[in-house]
Amino acid sequence: MTDTRRRRSAEDYYAGLPEFDVAPLWKDLGNLLTREPKVKAVPHLWRYEEIRPQLMEAGEVVTAEEAERRVLMLMNPGLQDRPAPTRAAATNMLYAGLQLVLPGEIAGPHRHTPAALRFIVEGSSAYTTVQGERTLMEFGDMVLTPNWAIHDHGNESDEPMIWLDGLDIPLVNSLEATFFEDFGDDPQELTKPIDASARTLAAGRLNPPEQREWNKLYSPVVNYPWKQTEQTLKNTAQDTKGTPTDGVIFEYTNPYTGGPVMPTMSCYIQLLAPGMHTEAHRHTSSAVYHVARGSGYSIIGGQKIEWEEKDTFALPGWAVHEHVNGSSSDEAILFSFTDEPVLRALGLYREAGRERQG
Amino acid sequence: MTDTRRRRSAEDYYAGLPEFDVAPLWKDLGNLLTREPKVKAVPHLWRYEEIRPQLMEAGEVVTAEEAERRVLMLMNPGLQDRPAPTRAAATNMLYAGLQLVLPGEIAGPHRHTPAALRFIVEGSSAYTTVQGERTLMEFGDMVLTPNWAIHDHGNESDEPMIWLDGLDIPLVNSLEATFFEDFGDDPQELTKPIDASARTLAAGRLNPPEQREWNKLYSPVVNYPWKQTEQTLKNTAQDTKGTPTDGVIFEYTNPYTGGPVMPTMSCYIQLLAPGMHTEAHRHTSSAVYHVARGSGYSIIGGQKIEWEEKDTFALPGWAVHEHVNGSSSDEAILFSFTDEPVLRALGLYREAGRERQG
Amino acid sequence: MTDTRRRRSAEDYYAGLPEFDVAPLWKDLGNLLTREPKVKAVPHLWRYEEIRPQLMEAGEVVTAEEAERRVLMLMNPGLQDRPAPTRAAATNMLYAGLQLVLPGEIAGPHRHTPAALRFIVEGSSAYTTVQGERTLMEFGDMVLTPNWAIHDHGNESDEPMIWLDGLDIPLVNSLEATFFEDFGDDPQELTKPIDASARTLAAGRLNPPEQREWNKLYSPVVNYPWKQTEQTLKNTAQDTKGTPTDGVIFEYTNPYTGGPVMPTMSCYIQLLAPGMHTEAHRHTSSAVYHVARGSGYSIIGGQKIEWEEKDTFALPGWAVHEHVNGSSSDEAILFSFTDEPVLRALGLYREAGRERQG
Amino acid sequence: MTDTRRRRSAEDYYAGLPEFDVAPLWKDLGNLLTREPKVKAVPHLWRYEEIRPQLMEAGEVVTAEEAERRVLMLMNPGLQDRPAPTRAAATNMLYAGLQLVLPGEIAGPHRHTPAALRFIVEGSSAYTTVQGERTLMEFGDMVLTPNWAIHDHGNESDEPMIWLDGLDIPLVNSLEATFFEDFGDDPQELTKPIDASARTLAAGRLNPPEQREWNKLYSPVVNYPWKQTEQTLKNTAQDTKGTPTDGVIFEYTNPYTGGPVMPTMSCYIQLLAPGMHTEAHRHTSSAVYHVARGSGYSIIGGQKIEWEEKDTFALPGWAVHEHVNGSSSDEAILFSFTDEPVLRALGLYREAGRERQG
Repeated sequence: MTDTRRRRSAEDYYAGLPEFDVAPLWKDLGNLLTREPKVKAVPHLWRYEEIRPQLMEAGEVVTAEEAERRVLMLMNPGLQDRPAPTRAAATNMLYAGLQLVLPGEIAGPHRHTPAALRFIVEGSSAYTTVQGERTLMEFGDMVLTPNWAIHDHGNESDEPMIWLDGLDIPLVNSLEATFFEDFGDDPQELTKPIDASARTLAAGRLNPPEQREWNKLYSPVVNYPWKQTEQTLKNTAQDTKGTPTDGVIFEYTNPYTGGPVMPTMSCYIQLLAPGMHTEAHRHTSSAVYHVARGSGYSIIGGQKIEWEEKDTFALPGWAVHEHVNGSSSDEAILFSFTDEPVLRALGLYREAGRERQG
Repeated sequence: MTDTRRRRSAEDYYAGLPEFDVAPLWKDLGNLLTREPKVKAVPHLWRYEEIRPQLMEAGEVVTAEEAERRVLMLMNPGLQDRPAPTRAAATNMLYAGLQLVLPGEIAGPHRHTPAALRFIVEGSSAYTTVQGERTLMEFGDMVLTPNWAIHDHGNESDEPMIWLDGLDIPLVNSLEATFFEDFGDDPQELTKPIDASARTLAAGRLNPPEQREWNKLYSPVVNYPWKQTEQTLKNTAQDTKGTPTDGVIFEYTNPYTGGPVMPTMSCYIQLLAPGMHTEAHRHTSSAVYHVARGSGYSIIGGQKIEWEEKDTFALPGWAVHEHVNGSSSDEAILFSFTDEPVLRALGLYREAGRERQG
Repeated sequence: MTDTRRRRSAEDYYAGLPEFDVAPLWKDLGNLLTREPKVKAVPHLWRYEEIRPQLMEAGEVVTAEEAERRVLMLMNPGLQDRPAPTRAAATNMLYAGLQLVLPGEIAGPHRHTPAALRFIVEGSSAYTTVQGERTLMEFGDMVLTPNWAIHDHGNESDEPMIWLDGLDIPLVNSLEATFFEDFGDDPQELTKPIDASARTLAAGRLNPPEQREWNKLYSPVVNYPWKQTEQTLKNTAQDTKGTPTDGVIFEYTNPYTGGPVMPTMSCYIQLLAPGMHTEAHRHTSSAVYHVARGSGYSIIGGQKIEWEEKDTFALPGWAVHEHVNGSSSDEAILFSFTDEPVLRALGLYREAGRERQG
Repeated sequence: MTDTRRRRSAEDYYAGLPEFDVAPLWKDLGNLLTREPKVKAVPHLWRYEEIRPQLMEAGEVVTAEEAERRVLMLMNPGLQDRPAPTRAAATNMLYAGLQLVLPGEIAGPHRHTPAALRFIVEGSSAYTTVQGERTLMEFGDMVLTPNWAIHDHGNESDEPMIWLDGLDIPLVNSLEATFFEDFGDDPQELTKPIDASARTLAAGRLNPPEQREWNKLYSPVVNYPWKQTEQTLKNTAQDTKGTPTDGVIFEYTNPYTGGPVMPTMSCYIQLLAPGMHTEAHRHTSSAVYHVARGSGYSIIGGQKIEWEEKDTFALPGWAVHEHVNGSSSDEAILFSFTDEPVLRALGLYREAGRERQG
């Protein structure tokens, strides 16, 4: 070290660092390593009775060519200062949208590395085809279009269909791993019987022995039918009120691993018995909830979110939350999807109990 | 080496070896390392119409105290020169028996390291309780009482119940790993709702999140109900004739792994379409088949085995086999259990296709 | 839908959407789903001969209290418009820094969910203690301080020590899963022999049977000693030039799984034979390279990066790259760390070969 | 049920059952389900100073053609009433033999589904080639020739080589899964550098990234060199006396899984500090021990087994055992192989502590 250097002031020193594309950690530590996560998303409710008219109006505003993406994205108010590729987000790493497909419309086959799931909100018998298997969708069905799986859809029924889309777009864009490919306007060829995976795999925990050759990270099931989901919930609810924090709760699983349906998102269905008020807790994973049945409210981060059937709401990561079924006679059923598998796989999932919020 | 030694004859040399508890490999190699497996079990059929009367008569012969083990073991004729602990075998490593439980009878709780499964042949509503969960059994149900799981059973109905028992006794005895424990005559306490696991897990591929804490090698499902099994078979049979060697075939699985129900035995159910004649093949695993529905024949190692409903037959390991549904109008359904998971886990499973047998 | 609504202009429609916290996907699709990843980091070189003097000068500028974080972070020029918690990044999801510890200095024990690794650049015999095990660090050693592992360090030698820090801070901050905990100024208690894990696990592929109880996602090895690393490289280089794209390359592994040392970052060491010019390829994972031995250049995304011993350079994700050992007589050895395990775990790892760049 | 039947005596009933190939469980239960394992093998010692002369004499007795199998099999006295394919056994499911290869001899390539391991007892630089990789063997090396791996060997040195063979022949023959194939007399082609796997994998826990394509159930390492083994033992013994029941003990592992080297047998090396007397315990797995260094005794099932260097002894399954290093100044080192992975994979491994034996 020369005298010259020694005589330089601290100010000059700091001013000179950018030239070398370096920066002093000791000035920035508080931004980098926080005691607890700094979560930017906020608890938020999207009311179906408000969004649905906007969605229906989109049917008129949007041209025929654009119709295949007639989706209103649910934008978390806390995330609107993020750049475009990650701003369309319901929680930190989860995208949600409400999609409308009108009778007679089709969307051509395509695939992308962001994975998608659908929970059917309204309508009957529109189809999605995933890698050669077509499924006819009904209320409450949960349909997977995983990472890089070719899919297309259409509505050959005479009523509109609306579903909730869940994707990991903010995550995949954050990881700079988005690929997209289009296959034109014609529906893909059907190479399997309609609803083959649901018919084969939905009942009885029986797997075709070919399973041993399945080497994907995601479930081969295209549609987890509501009929089976509801039956399981009701059977179990006769026996138990379930877990303190979530009532009767189930994870949709990959038949070949028992694990989550996709490596980036897991899906849950839960039933709150009449009048149930769950214990509060929190976890580093975030979630998007959709009200399949019933009404009530959740307290999230001290904020009361009152929900009705078909509403959607956001649970930010690490936010304390508890759920209340507002009815003393009817069950409430909540569907949700979450980025929990990501946090678990990376050793970053953490959960903590909490007192109920005042 | 001394002169003395050198002058000893080969005969003297060999005669001297046993004193040191050693033996010359070069004299015995052909016994130890064979080009192909030397399988001792033979293809064999046990006709239900013959065995059932013997079983019913056992109800009179057997004293009340012994009634809880009123089982006729299916003894493979090829294995009757084995010592007692492994002679009771339908194939090399698999035990099978037909068990009768008369109305009013109970068997007290016990457990053992050999694992057991039951396929219900006759009767309705007798119960088995496994680790606090009671199941009411019906025709076609497949019930697990895994390694070291406390179980007891009783028949509170007004008709006899008969089931097929499948165990890995010959394997566990060969491995000298058998433990047994008795818990007296009183039924164990019920700690879970009746049929809880079937009700919770049978439909929809939904798992309770507690799954992640399950650390057993076997499935938590007590009863795989026939209702779900049959539905899956029929759904799938509408779409396909299934695999060339086995028709429409499914493996019963552990919901938490997607793997076999127990580490030592796997269970399969398969449907042969009317008139189906499968392609021949063979594998190192052996199996016990039971005819759930229909009639037909199998050719096993060149021998024709003609089977009717409720018959049981043995497929020895490495025996070429093919199945024929003898009816041109009705489906045939075969249940089977096999030691395949053992051979796979140890790297010893091998399969080969073969021409149909003349 | 009312007449009023129908008469609303498209402009008015779009203007009204933010009120409902929704946005039209069809206007934003190009930002969300791109044909290929949009990577913001740029190829970049940090020259040791430039950075080292800055680091040494920091010894004078930084107060004693701050000394324990005397790190110059390597800031990728392409990422400087990101917000503070993720701006300190050498590539999209990887943080890198050069840390100086002067003789006599210590840093008290702390832990954080971001995981860290160290590659020793200069000095000898400073220590790091990780969960009760102290290691004395030498040139080329690779030291792990995994997610939430308590660690502290000090320099009881008489020369400065400099190491390269690698962390997953941008990733963990993006996932909003950062926790941090401080344990004061006193070094943690030593509960294991010095360098116990290196001494036990470095040689011979022998594991203590207690391994079966290890349930962490990261390796139990604290220090992967250079002595072993170099020996393996040299042994292998005598036999082969290695893979076309990376020469003789090894992944540091977790002895209990054979997988990467941590779930979020993997470490590699590679030797380029004299004069070797590797084939070009690219992958969605990014990496930070550090030159352990030798000199040469890499072509990354068409840009030539000329490196000398102890330099560090950034490989952005999906950037085509090839490496050249500039010497015709000496080997070049590159250490690198990468976010590859994240992309693999999530099904987002993709690799493609490419022609050499002009 | 007819009157006739009812009038049949119990004796007549039992006499009639064999005709139907069934047998009454209630008469045989005690043979099938025992409270604890009935273990037939006995504790036994094979003294090297006794066996070695027999082995050397075999060099004269055995013709040149047979020389390639010049092995004296260690025959457990408790198992000599078993049939030929499983009688050659040192414990229930483990075969052991001492093999002599004289200078100039070769054994042509062959493979078999029983897996083999070798622990080198005497000699230097004879070779084994396994799937194209040749290893030169020295004292203490542990060499794998796994299930169905083509191997051959020869002795191009000028001294005899003797090694201990360990195989799972009794297990594989019990499972009726033995296949064997011969490839003539010429050594197989060398496709890899000599000792490539040892040189690449022995030091440093570095794996070639190709590891991800390894899909075998066994380790790719051909030779675990004594040099590395001894270094690890000595390093660790400086720090600790190890576990109460086994002293300083390590399992040889598969670098790609961290698990045992083969699915049917695991290998251990353990060091007993001078004077160490371990605590007694037992487990369902059996083992064959070989004394690599030192002398002492073990108490097995109440029987004292006094061992010297190069002796081999049998530990039957479920036998209580404890080891004593007879020297107050020198370490004792025991190599062992065991069927533990089989019992673990099948859920049949059980371990229990016990008081020291009188």
